[in-house]
Amino acid sequence: MRALVKTEAGPGMVVRDVPVPPCGPSDVLIKVHYAGVCGTDLHIWEWDAWASARLKPPVTIGHEFAGEIVQMGVEARAEGLLAVGDRVTAEGHIVCGHCLPCRTGDAHVCRRTRIIGVDRDGAFAEFIAMPASNVMKLDGIPTEIGAIMDPMGNAVHTVLEGGDVAGSAVLVLGCGPIGCFAVGVARAAGASLVIASDLNPTRLDLARRMGAHVTLNPASDDVVGRIRDLTGGEGVDLVCEMSGHPNGHQTAFSAARLAGRVNLLGTPSRTTEVNFARDVIFKGLTLYGVTGRRMYDTWQQMFRLLRAGQLDPRPVVTHRFGLEQMAEAIQVIKDGQAGKVILEIGA
Amino acid sequence: MRALVKTEAGPGMVVRDVPVPPCGPSDVLIKVHYAGVCGTDLHIWEWDAWASARLKPPVTIGHEFAGEIVQMGVEARAEGLLAVGDRVTAEGHIVCGHCLPCRTGDAHVCRRTRIIGVDRDGAFAEFIAMPASNVMKLDGIPTEIGAIMDPMGNAVHTVLEGGDVAGSAVLVLGCGPIGCFAVGVARAAGASLVIASDLNPTRLDLARRMGAHVTLNPASDDVVGRIRDLTGGEGVDLVCEMSGHPNGHQTAFSAARLAGRVNLLGTPSRTTEVNFARDVIFKGLTLYGVTGRRMYDTWQQMFRLLRAGQLDPRPVVTHRFGLEQMAEAIQVIKDGQAGKVILEIGA
Amino acid sequence: MRALVKTEAGPGMVVRDVPVPPCGPSDVLIKVHYAGVCGTDLHIWEWDAWASARLKPPVTIGHEFAGEIVQMGVEARAEGLLAVGDRVTAEGHIVCGHCLPCRTGDAHVCRRTRIIGVDRDGAFAEFIAMPASNVMKLDGIPTEIGAIMDPMGNAVHTVLEGGDVAGSAVLVLGCGPIGCFAVGVARAAGASLVIASDLNPTRLDLARRMGAHVTLNPASDDVVGRIRDLTGGEGVDLVCEMSGHPNGHQTAFSAARLAGRVNLLGTPSRTTEVNFARDVIFKGLTLYGVTGRRMYDTWQQMFRLLRAGQLDPRPVVTHRFGLEQMAEAIQVIKDGQAGKVILEIGA
Amino acid sequence: MRALVKTEAGPGMVVRDVPVPPCGPSDVLIKVHYAGVCGTDLHIWEWDAWASARLKPPVTIGHEFAGEIVQMGVEARAEGLLAVGDRVTAEGHIVCGHCLPCRTGDAHVCRRTRIIGVDRDGAFAEFIAMPASNVMKLDGIPTEIGAIMDPMGNAVHTVLEGGDVAGSAVLVLGCGPIGCFAVGVARAAGASLVIASDLNPTRLDLARRMGAHVTLNPASDDVVGRIRDLTGGEGVDLVCEMSGHPNGHQTAFSAARLAGRVNLLGTPSRTTEVNFARDVIFKGLTLYGVTGRRMYDTWQQMFRLLRAGQLDPRPVVTHRFGLEQMAEAIQVIKDGQAGKVILEIGA
Repeated sequence: MRALVKTEAGPGMVVRDVPVPPCGPSDVLIKVHYAGVCGTDLHIWEWDAWASARLKPPVTIGHEFAGEIVQMGVEARAEGLLAVGDRVTAEGHIVCGHCLPCRTGDAHVCRRTRIIGVDRDGAFAEFIAMPASNVMKLDGIPTEIGAIMDPMGNAVHTVLEGGDVAGSAVLVLGCGPIGCFAVGVARAAGASLVIASDLNPTRLDLARRMGAHVTLNPASDDVVGRIRDLTGGEGVDLVCEMSGHPNGHQTAFSAARLAGRVNLLGTPSRTTEVNFARDVIFKGLTLYGVTGRRMYDTWQQMFRLLRAGQLDPRPVVTHRFGLEQMAEAIQVIKDGQAGKVILEIGA
Repeated sequence: MRALVKTEAGPGMVVRDVPVPPCGPSDVLIKVHYAGVCGTDLHIWEWDAWASARLKPPVTIGHEFAGEIVQMGVEARAEGLLAVGDRVTAEGHIVCGHCLPCRTGDAHVCRRTRIIGVDRDGAFAEFIAMPASNVMKLDGIPTEIGAIMDPMGNAVHTVLEGGDVAGSAVLVLGCGPIGCFAVGVARAAGASLVIASDLNPTRLDLARRMGAHVTLNPASDDVVGRIRDLTGGEGVDLVCEMSGHPNGHQTAFSAARLAGRVNLLGTPSRTTEVNFARDVIFKGLTLYGVTGRRMYDTWQQMFRLLRAGQLDPRPVVTHRFGLEQMAEAIQVIKDGQAGKVILEIGA
Repeated sequence: MRALVKTEAGPGMVVRDVPVPPCGPSDVLIKVHYAGVCGTDLHIWEWDAWASARLKPPVTIGHEFAGEIVQMGVEARAEGLLAVGDRVTAEGHIVCGHCLPCRTGDAHVCRRTRIIGVDRDGAFAEFIAMPASNVMKLDGIPTEIGAIMDPMGNAVHTVLEGGDVAGSAVLVLGCGPIGCFAVGVARAAGASLVIASDLNPTRLDLARRMGAHVTLNPASDDVVGRIRDLTGGEGVDLVCEMSGHPNGHQTAFSAARLAGRVNLLGTPSRTTEVNFARDVIFKGLTLYGVTGRRMYDTWQQMFRLLRAGQLDPRPVVTHRFGLEQMAEAIQVIKDGQAGKVILEIGA
Repeated sequence: MRALVKTEAGPGMVVRDVPVPPCGPSDVLIKVHYAGVCGTDLHIWEWDAWASARLKPPVTIGHEFAGEIVQMGVEARAEGLLAVGDRVTAEGHIVCGHCLPCRTGDAHVCRRTRIIGVDRDGAFAEFIAMPASNVMKLDGIPTEIGAIMDPMGNAVHTVLEGGDVAGSAVLVLGCGPIGCFAVGVARAAGASLVIASDLNPTRLDLARRMGAHVTLNPASDDVVGRIRDLTGGEGVDLVCEMSGHPNGHQTAFSAARLAGRVNLLGTPSRTTEVNFARDVIFKGLTLYGVTGRRMYDTWQQMFRLLRAGQLDPRPVVTHRFGLEQMAEAIQVIKDGQAGKVILEIGA
């Protein structure tokens, strides 16, 4: 089959013919229809410090996808819960199920997580084999949307961690695809005020289309001052920090209200100076580091919001490419003009 | 001043002239503009077993109201947080602040609660004195809506107790005013499916106007069967039991999904036979008894949803009367044709 | 191998030779050392209404056990987390992993649960095959104690569901083995006052040995009155209802404090009349139905308390029998003189 | 009366005669028996940047105390819940009761908090007037212990915030008085492993006397390495960061397990460089800033643990002085040889 492979240490990826992966007894084999291109894939393409430390080429890239089950292992079939022909997506973290986090509701930070497209072969390929327990039926959700439920799930995890959002004021810092999804999730969950901030006007426009009540641009707006005005001087209940930038962290701590919450998903490439006394302790703040998606609470919440039509991610999808066009996909992401970029593989 | 008073043990109430209540050092005196008529007032009017055991006539009736501050005690004024002229509503449970529930976030079940219009003089009067700490500014919410925030708060408490409603399936059993408000609250909080059930078609129509996706009438519908169909066989995540009827309890237990939740607000006049093994234990259900409003989390959530326009209770208000017309107000409630009934007192 | 089998509809069980169960790719085969006899096994022995409706003979009985891994399926071995020779116990609920409860932290009420010794062959046998994901290493916990972690887990689930027990007053209603374990768990978790109630003086003695501060016997004590006295008039924060009797339910509702909690584990054989207004709604109570063990939060909490020596269940173990002596085991349980009864199978 | 007063901007305090404070309608006047000396008082004595920015001399210092009610305002008396002669302590944060944090269970970070001994006259005096709602009866707890419930409450807040401690591994970083109290609270709440770390051997000795299973000294121990060994490689579930030092923060983040929690109470005097990606986001950590005591959940938990004898803070009390000896009290604190220092004022 064709697959997009990091063949050796260094930048880039190549399409090459590789064997269809074997389908173990507990696995299902999925024909990939669509896959999403993630910022992580950009790091892998560019072979940055993180990527070179973690990946062991050759490895097929890609961790966001949806498609159709074409084969089932004997145990997966015996369960009787999935079937050949089902349209499905999958959680890309393959976890051990035995460690303390796995056993206590935090499998998303399993000590032994293996991520598809990073630690084992991924989804930028015609077929992928996945443990049946990681696979979920789309049941009517369009397959293309199914392909981006992984990053949408990051947004659901970030917005809904920490309690009831209904009636809250939520600030989304950083309007890449996950930030834009977060705007939509906050609206669907009944937030009273959703403020989105980014330096990029194109991204702010996507945030508005996802339902942001107010968009702010740090290039021209006094972000913290405007937030104070918009919230009667309180600050916001929840900050979704998607920028991963030290400036974003500082804005987050300043913009959060007393006893508020900052959920951090954007992964910084460097350290941040934190004034814990002023910004965390005296304010009684809660900070939470978001990795992946809660398995599988996050997915259930997302399925429900999507199926009810409360969350519609389609405005965020701006580009579609074929598997052979990965260089172009990477380029539009680097240019900062893209929302979500999708690879059309086998649809 | 004029006030509607239960002058002696027995049915009915009378309008009479009584002294304006004194305004203590920590109190504010409020000119009542509007007041809401509650099912509790009907019990008091009819002098049922509960009322005759609890009320000590003479007592001015009425616990739902809003109006304008006209006088302030010395300590209330010193706080500087309220002012003469403020439009306000108030929590009608006056609690001790010292008992275990008061000290641990459950003041709504304070051991020493004194309820206005029940245990001390109430709001069906031109003026009422309230402790400043029970009083909240409307800040733009129409005063008439302020007058029904007490029962709306019951609905907020019932819907939001137990976690995030976003994406959930919610069943409201019993569509009196609080049930109808609950429908609106569930929608505002992002429920994916809100089902309302009542025997009274007028009430079901109000529930639909408040946003119910589906209305069911036990007179003609197989309520539990329909709910199973609507939820893919699961049942609902949350039942708001507003009927107070043993049949409602049974429907609640049957309609709730495995590991679901039943919040009970409707106060039954008799006992219910419960099959705890089948209906609670093997299902892993949680049941919760709703009294009043969380002080003051419930109020804050409600203020936010109202101010953002996410919750609009106006379709539920069907009748308005003057203080002299209480007999008519009681009659429309008994006839089952009313949603929320409001007394126009001093607007 | 030898196994204790319900061979046909009707009372009793017989030891017979049956094939060693096959060990599937995701399974481990365990040589059973010890097994616990549960009240459920008594129902199965007596072939009551529940048992006759649920079991499909022939089936090997027994769901509480511990032993040693003697064989591993290919996938279980590939995981590298368990090994031949490991001393282990196992969760006896084999769940689907795909339904809503399974996907949202409530697998203990999975729609498709199959319980060993009930819905499929169980542990009163020389060997049992279990999915590796249900199996946990004892890591130093004595194997005999490992064999009773299933019912101890019921107790942990009952005591720890609903928040921090530290400093609380806890009432355990019904001092069978699970009730006695609950006493020990409440003490280990820092309860300030643990009260145990039962009609059987032998069981009350076991409860005292597990750490009950006070024991009450409804035959001679005014249970609710004594609890009021012991708690300064408040009532207890948490009731663990282990009796399954309508009288227990009524005591539970009366003994719980305002805004308190009643966790129900004892499975009644008949209905209870509940005064929801007085006992649940006006008190602001929470009720929760306990099934099984949270998978696997409960197990982790239990492992920790056992390994630290904070919980020592040994006083509750009163009798040991061989596999051939099941009739005697059943008899001591029926006589009400037993705490926990253990079968010594292959130690 | 005699009082210890910061008379003017600059170091030191002086004992002088001042008027007995007036007792308002909602107040009680308390004869102070004992008071605790806090690190905050050291900052005020030394007139550091924080103190000089916040205090407006003249102000009587002192915020930890207990004593006896000698006079009651008219409204306080009318409540009937406190009486002249009651031995009491008090929460020293006087809050507005109306702001968003006050109304939603977070009054400890009230926007308008006025702290006794900082923002208004305090407890290093023969008498102090307090709002009755801030005052709690000791009911048998020794008055000297009542005088240090404020800092003990900080410890209770830090240890119990975030859920059930039973069975957990807890690290206390920094063994000043609050750290030592935290050790005792963690033990009382059922922690399975309590590790305490400090550079000062005297303080580690106090931590051991409060129940620490293991003490570590960064001067000689590889703290993070030892913690890994002690926890089977996991790290601890909860870190109580009491040091306020950037090194403490780094140890906290490294020592916390995946999906663990760091509660920060020690107030740093400078910023900390945080690697959010490695230390918070990829680990799924929760951080929480601890200010004061939850009003009044923390107090209730503390009262219960003290009354049951589960928590005994007496080993931490190392020095006692008279009001005139404040310079000596300050000196023993600066020398690092003191645990908790108490002023004997009017006992």
